[in-house]
Amino acid sequence: MSSKQGAPSLASADEQDKFITDVFEMCMKRVVQGTRDRNTPVVNFKTPEELKELVDFDLTTDGNHREDLLSLCEKVFDYSVLTGHPRFFNQQYGGLDSYGVAGSFITDVINANGHTFEIAPMFLMTEVAVLEHMLKFVGYTNGEGTFCPGGSYSNFLSMNMARLWKFPETKSTGIYGLPKLVSFCSEQAHYSAKKNSTFLGYGTDNCWVVKCDDRGKMIPEEFEKLVLKCKDEGSVPLFVTATAGTTVLGSFDPFNEIAAICSKHKIWMHVDAAWGGSALLSKKYKHLCDGVHKADSLAWNAHKMMQAPLQCSVVLFKEKGSLERAHSLNVPYLFQSDKPYDVKYDLGRNLLQCSRKCDALKLWLMWKAKGDAGFERQVDQAMANAQYLTEQIRKRPEFELVIPHPEYTNVPFWYIPPSLKGKEKNEDYFKQLASIIPTIKTRMQKSGTLLVGYTPVGKIPTFFRMTVMNDKANFSDMDFVLDEIVKNGKDL
Amino acid sequence: MSSKQGAPSLASADEQDKFITDVFEMCMKRVVQGTRDRNTPVVNFKTPEELKELVDFDLTTDGNHREDLLSLCEKVFDYSVLTGHPRFFNQQYGGLDSYGVAGSFITDVINANGHTFEIAPMFLMTEVAVLEHMLKFVGYTNGEGTFCPGGSYSNFLSMNMARLWKFPETKSTGIYGLPKLVSFCSEQAHYSAKKNSTFLGYGTDNCWVVKCDDRGKMIPEEFEKLVLKCKDEGSVPLFVTATAGTTVLGSFDPFNEIAAICSKHKIWMHVDAAWGGSALLSKKYKHLCDGVHKADSLAWNAHKMMQAPLQCSVVLFKEKGSLERAHSLNVPYLFQSDKPYDVKYDLGRNLLQCSRKCDALKLWLMWKAKGDAGFERQVDQAMANAQYLTEQIRKRPEFELVIPHPEYTNVPFWYIPPSLKGKEKNEDYFKQLASIIPTIKTRMQKSGTLLVGYTPVGKIPTFFRMTVMNDKANFSDMDFVLDEIVKNGKDL
Repeated sequence: MSSKQGAPSLASADEQDKFITDVFEMCMKRVVQGTRDRNTPVVNFKTPEELKELVDFDLTTDGNHREDLLSLCEKVFDYSVLTGHPRFFNQQYGGLDSYGVAGSFITDVINANGHTFEIAPMFLMTEVAVLEHMLKFVGYTNGEGTFCPGGSYSNFLSMNMARLWKFPETKSTGIYGLPKLVSFCSEQAHYSAKKNSTFLGYGTDNCWVVKCDDRGKMIPEEFEKLVLKCKDEGSVPLFVTATAGTTVLGSFDPFNEIAAICSKHKIWMHVDAAWGGSALLSKKYKHLCDGVHKADSLAWNAHKMMQAPLQCSVVLFKEKGSLERAHSLNVPYLFQSDKPYDVKYDLGRNLLQCSRKCDALKLWLMWKAKGDAGFERQVDQAMANAQYLTEQIRKRPEFELVIPHPEYTNVPFWYIPPSLKGKEKNEDYFKQLASIIPTIKTRMQKSGTLLVGYTPVGKIPTFFRMTVMNDKANFSDMDFVLDEIVKNGKDL
Repeated sequence: MSSKQGAPSLASADEQDKFITDVFEMCMKRVVQGTRDRNTPVVNFKTPEELKELVDFDLTTDGNHREDLLSLCEKVFDYSVLTGHPRFFNQQYGGLDSYGVAGSFITDVINANGHTFEIAPMFLMTEVAVLEHMLKFVGYTNGEGTFCPGGSYSNFLSMNMARLWKFPETKSTGIYGLPKLVSFCSEQAHYSAKKNSTFLGYGTDNCWVVKCDDRGKMIPEEFEKLVLKCKDEGSVPLFVTATAGTTVLGSFDPFNEIAAICSKHKIWMHVDAAWGGSALLSKKYKHLCDGVHKADSLAWNAHKMMQAPLQCSVVLFKEKGSLERAHSLNVPYLFQSDKPYDVKYDLGRNLLQCSRKCDALKLWLMWKAKGDAGFERQVDQAMANAQYLTEQIRKRPEFELVIPHPEYTNVPFWYIPPSLKGKEKNEDYFKQLASIIPTIKTRMQKSGTLLVGYTPVGKIPTFFRMTVMNDKANFSDMDFVLDEIVKNGKDL
């Protein structure tokens, strides 16, 4: 515990500035510079119980003095994961972009609430600029959008929008008296499709799951079959989530075919492009998203492949006015109409959120720094890394690809340890594999050399899900991943 | 436009560090230190059209070089509102807490996603610590909670929770076949109650509005009348939002009486304490929240009275296990059960959000610095300021209170300009007043001397809504507000 109890919130202005500056220097040294050195461990892993021994988390009546606070901050750095490290492949975000960090700092100190122009003028102007630019990449010529706290939330807004598009009266009357409203997603869609179905009042039973082909893409014929079945039952097919870059396999659904079915049956088409939307930034890979401009809405997380700091999610709508139609209410204490500026810039008018972190500025600053060209290079580099990794897996007999031709930067694969090499691929074989893979991951986690995720998917047993995004990673890092797995798995 | 186009994302590591450091220094000088000087304008107001002339917001193919980027950053500071300024009273947040800023910086650079312990260990441990501490203040002895992106979202989770508590099967079946589910809130409740009712499938018609007394408090007898009416109609009274610290008038509903009605009729009681929950931190004022521990859930925004940087919202539930029951799904790619730690710390398991900004650490660091005692001082100082302001309004003949005895730090009042002094208070009088008040606000906004909101409420015509929170404001600032209004309004 603290040696000097006291009331440091009464610290002088200079002392407070010194504290912020000390913390800033730690941020630079421990993280911004630390992640550049591949010898820095990605994580110094401790269990929750161990952390409780190492760090005094408890909050008390009295405050702590600066030396104790700085020591706590050091511990936060000691035991945090360096998600910007070029050997962090555990999730689809990271990279630690310097312009993104600078933009985050500006956003933190200005500390504006993104509901009205009056108090967040520069944030809302940059939000409009970024959204307009992203709309162009999607191909929406008369669209609009908003920043959201995460992709699940973006998907949620779209699903809600679909209801108000087809049944505008539900805004006031609710869904009582309506036939069942059914939404669709593929087997490989993100779990938010199911969760959102619950919150909107439909329940998970009314989120129907469409079969995928063996590359993890929604089968359009299966989708239409379900649509017809839904109609036969007297229910209303309302909404489909197509996915650009599925979470696990990185697959892209056939958007043109899905759009044709939606158009025929008057279904709202949403594309969850949280992960794969960034392919639009690359002339070489934008074809993966062919047809997404036909969708009614599209969710795109800039905190994933674009490497903006968390949270940085966008949802775009094909038709201007959608947000206002769905969400506006009369709120005189906040959204007055007698203000000395065009109140269409009070973006919060047409949102669910009232208090809102301003997430656009950091992305705007990154875009100003890099230009489209810079983001294109990032995407192309990540793709090159993933393709190199795929080739190496093909070449090395101790590895096996889960899907033969990954489309994006997800590279799902198995490591086959010596003990299983050449054995019959029966239930027992896969059961053993499913225990070996987590063991290897844990060993690497404990040594801090790299972090990579694993998962089963449907009937496919547990495999490593490599997901490459940080453009600071290079081909050697890809080799390192495979070597490190062999090193940690060869006795298993 | 930029004089030197190029590819600055290829800037060297040193150049990137220099850029972050330059921006950090701007943050300190322009904002952290700038707000301390009362002569710094709160805002340098420009309309959207003017800003478009002054700042190049457009994004292009090529990036910009560091001098252009730094000049853009300077402009962001030039035209942003200093929400931490002691004369910013426009909304219920601000204050610019140094420890909060330091905690935000740490959160930005570590850039962890708050779904699993595996990648956000220190953030989730501090989240648990802060939640446990806040539960104690509320008086929940077996509770749990989570951080949310804003108070509307917290209220939304609670409303959804109520449905799954009373009708657990709706998680899978939806609300089809159920009688109408009705929620209640007072006339003075935050607008999210209505919006959330739409998203959950009930529609705004099924969010019934309970009358308030002339202090803006929900009338319990009116609530029960509506509950009985609802039952008579064959609908189900499901959920009520009581408010601790209403947005406009700062009123506290009678929680004990509301709890008794809820208990009798098996209604989920939620307290929207986004604004007023912080009264719990003060021994002198916690009585305002008497009875809130009887509620099933409570939303509390630490980014309001506690002055944590945005976003920092918490929702607490009386009963442990609520979140899991409501939200858990099987998600093998993220929430594996074969991890080398207790997976109950994978807090994202039981949330709607997948990607999630880690909002707890900054509040934890603030709490470590100040202790409960520091927060108590903040609340007491804000209350003292509000009470001083109220007294001055009573004393000065050119002002009039909208409610005679404000309970919290909202001080709603009218300025009566010489032209209206002594006139009959008829429709025309209030119509004139409703145009004079926005005029005065705009004048102050354009001169940058202070920012304060205005609003009508129900039948009460437009007034100034002072809302005091920044404990760096003092009695002189309160006098300044009144003097400045007189100065800008005496010719009207």
